[in-house]
Amino acid sequence: MAAKGQAGGRPRDSRVDRKILETTRELIDEVGYPNLTVDQVAARAGVGKAAIYRRYGSKAEMAFAASVHGQQLPPVADTGSLHGDLLALARTFHVRLSAPATRHLGPALVNELATNPDLVTRFQNTFLAAEQADFAEVIERAVDRGELAGPVDPVMAHVLVAGALSAAIHVLRLPVDDAMVADLAAAATAGLTALAMQHHAGQE
Amino acid sequence: MAAKGQAGGRPRDSRVDRKILETTRELIDEVGYPNLTVDQVAARAGVGKAAIYRRYGSKAEMAFAASVHGQQLPPVADTGSLHGDLLALARTFHVRLSAPATRHLGPALVNELATNPDLVTRFQNTFLAAEQADFAEVIERAVDRGELAGPVDPVMAHVLVAGALSAAIHVLRLPVDDAMVADLAAAATAGLTALAMQHHAGQE
Repeated sequence: MAAKGQAGGRPRDSRVDRKILETTRELIDEVGYPNLTVDQVAARAGVGKAAIYRRYGSKAEMAFAASVHGQQLPPVADTGSLHGDLLALARTFHVRLSAPATRHLGPALVNELATNPDLVTRFQNTFLAAEQADFAEVIERAVDRGELAGPVDPVMAHVLVAGALSAAIHVLRLPVDDAMVADLAAAATAGLTALAMQHHAGQE
Repeated sequence: MAAKGQAGGRPRDSRVDRKILETTRELIDEVGYPNLTVDQVAARAGVGKAAIYRRYGSKAEMAFAASVHGQQLPPVADTGSLHGDLLALARTFHVRLSAPATRHLGPALVNELATNPDLVTRFQNTFLAAEQADFAEVIERAVDRGELAGPVDPVMAHVLVAGALSAAIHVLRLPVDDAMVADLAAAATAGLTALAMQHHAGQE
């Protein structure tokens, strides 16, 4: 997630930014997310608490930025088929959402989003927008190849793959293995193919 | 969710049970979930706090039992098609997950599940099991009608419909309208049909 009040997601002081995020990651590894405090991060990073709260609204947002958003997502695989591309994306989300830090942080962030509309806006405009753009790319390639009858909403594709996975892992707390990830990708492929046909019927 | 320590989900003192749940619902309406306290419920219901904590592990579990689990779900509609049945289920979940109380409570419960394995067990064995049974019924009817090539996992069906909706509403905080619910039901229908074909290929 972009830091609070940054124009276009560009950091104003990237050294401080980096230090805060590195220190947060270190402390999550050492003490775990539930025990992490903003005070600890400020003290070890050698910055004031105000510097942290200028960037992040809360401990959850700071930790989310450090451990999830801070990871560079791999570029979207171009496998040559919609099913292959969605399976690759589903596997990336599976790894990301199952990571030990995310298993505490994801739910904490969900809880904060419920009471913090500003955080929802930042979360949607930066983090979710980037994820949805990956699905838009996959859909565009499938339309170009003629696999889809026309474009479908990348938001729906994201909900069917990343949303369903995040619900399975963080809400329903199901054991999710690669067979389930593969089934989800296969179901999403068939589902998006059907929606494209339905939405673009008679336009050929 | 069944009360803590109750055998088979049967209340030991249904008058006290009912009073706690009614009072919780009243207070959620009056003060909202974030301001609700177990103390308030105990005082107004005329029961000890211990009586509440024997039944529920926390405020979130008590409120969830009162406002979500306490609602009798309508019987699963038998519309004559897999798509119709899944659309009816998706609309029921949409109403339930979008209710004002659930918008706060759902995320609070998600956060508690992350740190409370006992709550996860109760949540899965009672609440989720009942929801998954509804999907099992819908799948069985579709197999009987010959719409599905064979049974598919009701857990996957539940993830594709209820999971995706709960992620869209509570995690991604998207505006979800009936058009999106209908698209989700159509995508889930095509997805489950494809999974049934894949899993039962060559068994005809």
